[in-house]
Amino acid sequence: MTLYLNLAEFISSRIEQGLYGPGERLPSVRTLSHEHGVSLTTVQQAYRVLECSGLAIPRPKSGYFVPADRRVAPLPQMGRPILRPVDISQWDMVQELMRFDQRAEVVQLGCGMPDISVPTLKPLLTAMARISRRSDSASLQYNHIQGVLALREQIARLSIDSGCRLTAADLIVTSGCQEALSTAIRAICSPGDIVAIASPSYHGMMQILKAADLKALEIPTDPVTGINLEALEMALEQWPIKAIQLTANCNNPLGYIMPDERKLKLIRMAQRFDVPIIEDDIYGDLSHRYPRPRSLKSFDEDNRVVLCSSFSKTVAPGLRVGWIAPGRYLPQVLHMKYIGSGATVTQPQLAVAEFIAKGNYLLHLRRMRKQYKRNGDQMSEWVNRYFPAGTRVSQPQGGFTLWVELPGEFDTYALNRLLEAQDVQVANGNIFSAAGKYRNCIRLNFANAPTRKVEMAVQKVGQTVGQLMEMEGGSGVVGRGG
Amino acid sequence: MTLYLNLAEFISSRIEQGLYGPGERLPSVRTLSHEHGVSLTTVQQAYRVLECSGLAIPRPKSGYFVPADRRVAPLPQMGRPILRPVDISQWDMVQELMRFDQRAEVVQLGCGMPDISVPTLKPLLTAMARISRRSDSASLQYNHIQGVLALREQIARLSIDSGCRLTAADLIVTSGCQEALSTAIRAICSPGDIVAIASPSYHGMMQILKAADLKALEIPTDPVTGINLEALEMALEQWPIKAIQLTANCNNPLGYIMPDERKLKLIRMAQRFDVPIIEDDIYGDLSHRYPRPRSLKSFDEDNRVVLCSSFSKTVAPGLRVGWIAPGRYLPQVLHMKYIGSGATVTQPQLAVAEFIAKGNYLLHLRRMRKQYKRNGDQMSEWVNRYFPAGTRVSQPQGGFTLWVELPGEFDTYALNRLLEAQDVQVANGNIFSAAGKYRNCIRLNFANAPTRKVEMAVQKVGQTVGQLMEMEGGSGVVGRGG
Repeated sequence: MTLYLNLAEFISSRIEQGLYGPGERLPSVRTLSHEHGVSLTTVQQAYRVLECSGLAIPRPKSGYFVPADRRVAPLPQMGRPILRPVDISQWDMVQELMRFDQRAEVVQLGCGMPDISVPTLKPLLTAMARISRRSDSASLQYNHIQGVLALREQIARLSIDSGCRLTAADLIVTSGCQEALSTAIRAICSPGDIVAIASPSYHGMMQILKAADLKALEIPTDPVTGINLEALEMALEQWPIKAIQLTANCNNPLGYIMPDERKLKLIRMAQRFDVPIIEDDIYGDLSHRYPRPRSLKSFDEDNRVVLCSSFSKTVAPGLRVGWIAPGRYLPQVLHMKYIGSGATVTQPQLAVAEFIAKGNYLLHLRRMRKQYKRNGDQMSEWVNRYFPAGTRVSQPQGGFTLWVELPGEFDTYALNRLLEAQDVQVANGNIFSAAGKYRNCIRLNFANAPTRKVEMAVQKVGQTVGQLMEMEGGSGVVGRGG
Repeated sequence: MTLYLNLAEFISSRIEQGLYGPGERLPSVRTLSHEHGVSLTTVQQAYRVLECSGLAIPRPKSGYFVPADRRVAPLPQMGRPILRPVDISQWDMVQELMRFDQRAEVVQLGCGMPDISVPTLKPLLTAMARISRRSDSASLQYNHIQGVLALREQIARLSIDSGCRLTAADLIVTSGCQEALSTAIRAICSPGDIVAIASPSYHGMMQILKAADLKALEIPTDPVTGINLEALEMALEQWPIKAIQLTANCNNPLGYIMPDERKLKLIRMAQRFDVPIIEDDIYGDLSHRYPRPRSLKSFDEDNRVVLCSSFSKTVAPGLRVGWIAPGRYLPQVLHMKYIGSGATVTQPQLAVAEFIAKGNYLLHLRRMRKQYKRNGDQMSEWVNRYFPAGTRVSQPQGGFTLWVELPGEFDTYALNRLLEAQDVQVANGNIFSAAGKYRNCIRLNFANAPTRKVEMAVQKVGQTVGQLMEMEGGSGVVGRGG
């Protein structure tokens, strides 16, 4: 299975590097089969992947071509974080992001909201209404500290799709993935400990480390294959790392899916150094490819992977239904969950359980997968069109966020200030780093329908970036003066 | 206002001490007015309080009498905890309590569940169903990190009843009071710090301290007037106490309401030693007297009181709608809330906001106040009737828990083991102490209707206590052998 993906990656990197330009013919199936020593079918599979990602167009009788209208920005560079543990900053910037303007006219490209306006969510709302009317007042009852059993059974059933074999007893329902992650960290680490973390990485995770008085060791991360295993190994040799935290599937903000062999290598490394892995799989079900990728947890042989996830991105964030499969840390995690918030709110659990059991969750996923893939392509195209030359863009394989690296020493804080007046908001890159790196990056959300309004918002961002660059002489630092 | 309460307390203590026996006539209004130098109205008010608490019965033309059928157990003794900070144990026992048997035939006298079967909660369920059907899918949306504004406005409005003047901006909605308390502790304390805590005290709080690696300094607490201020002052002089945590109103498990002048004295003490107070007011609205008592927060002049509360006991625990008014600690608490679980689930917030706004909350409270008062009296009577001589019982002024001190060096762990076979469960006293004291105490819940089945359960508990005492020769330790 990995052969054709490897090949697809190889060809796509050649396209990215400009070896095959827009409109040019790509090598024939036969040639590639010969060069790479793989079957014709494997090459065909690889091309189908490239076709799906818009990198190759088939022409009957003539083979595959790079799309003529394609002006592709290169991938973001792999971050080179300083390889030493640091204290976490950036809380003020995260607050900035949270204090988002709720006026309807503001285009929120900065937040992590999924599209919740789709008709496939209707059955969920119907279930919620029905549960409220149940004669046993089920909504009002306090539930088992591990969560509603019916829901845990459904989550266990779904986990098969990511290659896991979990049971209801292995799971604890949490108030969103945020509680799962913070509970995992508190259960495993003590103040002063070092956590190795993919960089860039989810800002909520950074703040968890900060609040628990931990140090983050940021590991450089490739925008296509994920955390750099060589850098991670070096770090594990040099530092007393207490846990590894990362998002292997449909990563936020980069959008990559770690190839399976790298996942396995990571697990082996964790075993060798005897370190637990805290896996955030919140976007895992939103892979643009079907079937969804395997979780790290599915490779876990000795219960060292703590799997954290949630329905906040796949279904709706307002439900706050997340979960954790803590492996060997179950007793500690259960204690932390009990003291942190007690049981989780009952009604959304019952509703989500019903939503999954009746098959509505999978129907909904099918729709969202297509929608997010389409929206992502559209958003990338707009960024290519409206942003200054030198801009680099991620190629998300899942989820609904795009990572954009702006040219030069750009500081996006100034950018967001200017965008505010134009009713647009983006997420500053520096909140995705413990040490406040990625000041020249932004994250864009493409969950919602790519309307003309969204296009204009992206255009505004691109133009404002251009203006700021001109103001500062092209490559100077556009800082906030301090 | 405090004059008549003081007098009521004075008379009630005389009755407790046996100065006025069952059926005896109490001093006349005129006599008391003369003796205590207070107005006739004040004495009449005091007698009305005693009448409400079932301690005095008026007979036309003859004055007030102690109820003839009253066989009152003495109050529990004030705990004498060792005055040094200790690490918290008892997590295994708390788990024991949580792992409660959900079979319908089991009478749960151990849990902290309110009665959620009452008709006054119907409008809440109707609101939940209606909100689920809203065309804007409000239930699915992620909300402001501080919580739904409409709810915070209602909580602020209600806070006037406890003497506070809060605004929506002062409040953060949490996942139950448990999250409010744990967030407060994390925002204020660092590992190794000492927290002064009323003893006995809510077991969830003890476990919060344990999980945050803090030490508890248990302060002896009077079953009628609350935390012993003299002992607290000594502790503050001797130890670097980082925070004081207590439940001043309708205390769990003791049921007392701290008199206002003691509340004020406590606030002054906290000011003098410059220590924050973390107030748990979860049962405050369930005072058996109307209007409800003032919160400590209402005496707070310099924002040092962190008020934690919830609708889990007043409305329903399954909603997980709590809140915190963190005073000067708002920025830190907001950070901890963000990292701990992100925003709180939306739909229950909207439903509770509507429930309050339409006046249904106050109607519900009026009903529950009466019900819990009546149930509490009934439960006390049963304990008096069915438990061995020497048993001591609290006199709850609010909430729905009764604290029972069994005679001798009784260990309630053995008791609960025997009760399990009889389908009854009580809460072991030792989980209400950081150091595992109160092994000879149990807490009984009287929220639900005092049916024949409940009476039989109480009888079983009393009989089993008696049997255990006989087995061990009356006053020997009935331990679990380790």
